[in-house]
Amino acid sequence: MILTVTLNTALDVTYRVPRLLPHASHRVTAVTERPGGKGLNVARVLAALGHKVTATGFAGGPVGSVVRNLLAASPGVVDALLPCEGASRRTLAVVDETTGDTTQFNEPGPLITPAEWARFLAHYEELVAGVRAVALCGSLPPGVPVGAYAVLVRAARAAGVPVLLDTSGEALRRGVAARPEIIKPNSAELAELTGSRDPLPASRDARRRGAHAVVTSLGPAGLLAATAQGTWQAAPPRPLSGNPTGAGDSVVAGLLSALAEGLDWPDRLTRAAALSAATVLSPVAGEFDPGAYEELRRTVRVTNGS
Amino acid sequence: MILTVTLNTALDVTYRVPRLLPHASHRVTAVTERPGGKGLNVARVLAALGHKVTATGFAGGPVGSVVRNLLAASPGVVDALLPCEGASRRTLAVVDETTGDTTQFNEPGPLITPAEWARFLAHYEELVAGVRAVALCGSLPPGVPVGAYAVLVRAARAAGVPVLLDTSGEALRRGVAARPEIIKPNSAELAELTGSRDPLPASRDARRRGAHAVVTSLGPAGLLAATAQGTWQAAPPRPLSGNPTGAGDSVVAGLLSALAEGLDWPDRLTRAAALSAATVLSPVAGEFDPGAYEELRRTVRVTNGS
Repeated sequence: MILTVTLNTALDVTYRVPRLLPHASHRVTAVTERPGGKGLNVARVLAALGHKVTATGFAGGPVGSVVRNLLAASPGVVDALLPCEGASRRTLAVVDETTGDTTQFNEPGPLITPAEWARFLAHYEELVAGVRAVALCGSLPPGVPVGAYAVLVRAARAAGVPVLLDTSGEALRRGVAARPEIIKPNSAELAELTGSRDPLPASRDARRRGAHAVVTSLGPAGLLAATAQGTWQAAPPRPLSGNPTGAGDSVVAGLLSALAEGLDWPDRLTRAAALSAATVLSPVAGEFDPGAYEELRRTVRVTNGS
Repeated sequence: MILTVTLNTALDVTYRVPRLLPHASHRVTAVTERPGGKGLNVARVLAALGHKVTATGFAGGPVGSVVRNLLAASPGVVDALLPCEGASRRTLAVVDETTGDTTQFNEPGPLITPAEWARFLAHYEELVAGVRAVALCGSLPPGVPVGAYAVLVRAARAAGVPVLLDTSGEALRRGVAARPEIIKPNSAELAELTGSRDPLPASRDARRRGAHAVVTSLGPAGLLAATAQGTWQAAPPRPLSGNPTGAGDSVVAGLLSALAEGLDWPDRLTRAAALSAATVLSPVAGEFDPGAYEELRRTVRVTNGS
């Protein structure tokens, strides 16, 4: 069993419009909804890979109910979300059908009370005792202390469970100091954490700050991993074009599933890079193309760095 | 009791963003939600004027539940909405806090089945028998026959109840032919119905098509009414600036309440123009400012046309 934590779950809504024109009125031609927040996306990918997954975090209000109903329809994910008084947020992606571009709107999320946060911590400590690995993913909703991920990392480490942390800004800075097994920033998040735009020295800096391993998504260039066992770069055999939505969550699922299976770093990175590329290639945003994944697993190149 | 019909009820969501930039990602700074669809807006204004109001139409899915819960919190409106299998729609207004401009997104609404439509007709015929006036408002959800409003107008007329029809396009064209008491197009809707951009001859054309009276909103210039009793124009004493959202719904509520109270056309138009202007002046979109309304009732000018 793997545990994923999504403190700020979301209902991801996508609108398609013929053409986005600011200050105009638009008839939405298609609406799709799926459970969102990075941890729930990671949970779905883990389930698709055949892992048992429990998803926790907060879900509240009418949007929270919709998220839970949609999650119940996702095979293989155990819903261990806690209710909260505030209403879970929506995210909205408006797709311009003429240009293919997406305009994104993210609601802030519910206000979590100190009592709700305390209840979550007790719930999390129970859950974490029985799992092989934990992913802590995404932004913190209002009210949750900015040091929340540091507390969750320490509780997992106390239970002997490896933790992957995927967040940004101050939540990442605080969380790193609690010594997670893996962090997975993108280039911008790594630069914000370390002050350096050069991924290799920045990764080393992030390791000095506490992360045992740093896996940075470099976009089309693949992944850069700086670990105690060495440094690697993993990339698909050719540049891919497609929809990068969810590619980062697929990296997290690839790394965490391979870690839970006891694979070594080159195999973890092969899986993560192949899943990420297969997500970019999928016609459905945030899902991976299983055929492309099988092919990419054989063709992703992992090179040993310095 | 007045009945308002909203076949395509909505949850009206408003996002405030610091600045709308197409193809960028936006942090939404404030989210507000209210029950929407023109007929529900009209019902709220009627209730605020002290009238008893019943609201019917369809509400389905999670969004429909939110609409009904919010409506239950609106004093004075009796909820007689029928459930439907499909999910009621959202409308989204994105307000750019830098420019004040609004970008609007309208979801299409639930697919209504023939059985649901038949159930609605029976429900409507029961409701209409006991009311003083009916407002038929807004767009038709998918699946409802385009001649729906004609059927609803005829059923009200058969029960001896006056009907105000506020819709557009083909639904208006078909509805007008069933001879409603009043239609309330804006200039563009009237031009689309008649082919003429000149409101006075266009209003006469619309009356020949079946409407007993045509009240056209001319925006800041007020209202133009063409009736069997004469032609009038009603305008606030000075041009007003503010948010015109809901001003048309306030016109409908003003006309219908005055009709139900047996007032004559000049008094109906005074009330409708004053309510509309007080809605434009209100800081909250879609609500009217009661103080401004009382003042405007005394200062709106109604002039007799040819």
